[in-house]
Amino acid sequence: VSEIDILRRLATLAGGGKGVVRGIGDDCAILRIPQGAELLIHTDMLIEDVHFRRRTHSAKAIGAKTLARGLSDVAAMGGTPRWALLSLAVPGWAEGRFLKAFYDGLLALGKQHGVALVGGDLAKSDRLSADIVILGTAPIGQALRRDTAKPGDGIYVSGALGHAAASRWREAPEPRLALGRWLRGRATACMDLSDGLSIDLHRLCWESKVSAGLDREPPRALQATPDQALHGGEDYELLFTTTKKMPKRYRGLAITRVGTIMAGSRGRVTLLGKELKAGGWDHFRKAR
Amino acid sequence: VSEIDILRRLATLAGGGKGVVRGIGDDCAILRIPQGAELLIHTDMLIEDVHFRRRTHSAKAIGAKTLARGLSDVAAMGGTPRWALLSLAVPGWAEGRFLKAFYDGLLALGKQHGVALVGGDLAKSDRLSADIVILGTAPIGQALRRDTAKPGDGIYVSGALGHAAASRWREAPEPRLALGRWLRGRATACMDLSDGLSIDLHRLCWESKVSAGLDREPPRALQATPDQALHGGEDYELLFTTTKKMPKRYRGLAITRVGTIMAGSRGRVTLLGKELKAGGWDHFRKAR
Repeated sequence: VSEIDILRRLATLAGGGKGVVRGIGDDCAILRIPQGAELLIHTDMLIEDVHFRRRTHSAKAIGAKTLARGLSDVAAMGGTPRWALLSLAVPGWAEGRFLKAFYDGLLALGKQHGVALVGGDLAKSDRLSADIVILGTAPIGQALRRDTAKPGDGIYVSGALGHAAASRWREAPEPRLALGRWLRGRATACMDLSDGLSIDLHRLCWESKVSAGLDREPPRALQATPDQALHGGEDYELLFTTTKKMPKRYRGLAITRVGTIMAGSRGRVTLLGKELKAGGWDHFRKAR
Repeated sequence: VSEIDILRRLATLAGGGKGVVRGIGDDCAILRIPQGAELLIHTDMLIEDVHFRRRTHSAKAIGAKTLARGLSDVAAMGGTPRWALLSLAVPGWAEGRFLKAFYDGLLALGKQHGVALVGGDLAKSDRLSADIVILGTAPIGQALRRDTAKPGDGIYVSGALGHAAASRWREAPEPRLALGRWLRGRATACMDLSDGLSIDLHRLCWESKVSAGLDREPPRALQATPDQALHGGEDYELLFTTTKKMPKRYRGLAITRVGTIMAGSRGRVTLLGKELKAGGWDHFRKAR
């Protein structure tokens, strides 16, 4: 299998998409951004034995997860995902059936969310790694950020936490795109819970130059321990702050107030008055 | 060194940039595309022992090359590079001094071309790999493509070929950005020579559904053999087609007519009437 063959096959599979002037097959993809919109862009790496194991995860699930993580980041900005680029380093064992199932998983999820694959790169390697770039848009000035929380804002999470840690995920998470868009103009700050509430809330507070007081344990997924709900990563729920009154549910998804943003001690997070150490997943420190 | 520390340091180094509403530090970067412009985007992987060796290449040169390759793709579209995102998988040996020099090389070249680093990802790995995303812009409808060559067009290359193959590159190539922009409205099709003239011209012809006849050997770099000039990759000169008369030089850079686009036999390339097999670098087939 040569690079040219794979790229040609991909170009056929990926097809066109809204706003795609030129997709796979050129030096660059050419994309048209809707008038009045800003571009959102995120990149994310998935590495074998760091983010997944091939013995325990199906190729389809790995492909879907690769895209789902990026979609979650667009959701966290209140954006609409539009395009993706995928770079793959592929070991010999993954050529053929694995690669096909991987793309099937990724492209099926992309189709579901109207995301077209418009580019990428391929290289041979001794370990599978995938780097995904997601592009989305949001109306100018309305994207949700994590550096805009203010003292007094309520802190909320969607869904129940610790599910991924308790279950060792097998399926791709559901990106909270509808909730993210609904939060535009409602939330003061927002991010997705990719690495665990304790570290992600620390990040939000650091960027916003504030601290946070949690006045309750976060809502726990079935079978998740309190520790897994506080520190477990990969839940991809939304963490947001707002001054507005929130409903208990949005389209069936639980919305729970867990604390309040406070002034001072940039990045500090407390739970019931005690300091909460950022104990979540740090890709750089913890990976093997 | 934790991921948070590195990202914070990078955010400081990378700073703002034109059109950057929000750079490193959020779920997505937020970018504003100039009115009347289309977005160009390219992604590219560099893997240790596939694209470079750490024994023979300095960290600074690897960093610069990582960016330069992407800049060359924007040049090939006649675009202006604006932003970049960088995902790095980093082995233990590369933490500290290597990583710093790598970023120095990359950011210095970025500064030179007005490119701001607006995002990325970091993971630990047992092999260094870098995935770079370059974003640029071009006036709507004016980007140069490789699927628009027509029978009768002259085929041209910039510079002299085979230099990288003959010298085993040590420095980052000079992206032909000024030439690419000048070719807007002049060239009928354009791409950069990343993998070798024979394979890249084949690609251009394949995309344009035409064939190509080379009526002379391409201009050769000092010490390059005819084979290196025809098949050697990594020169990053521009390959383009046009119906217009071209000067012998553009801003000191040689412009040489090497052949003519012809109808039929999609993707076929001949040299002095004999079929020229695509012998260049195929990242997927040849990498170890």
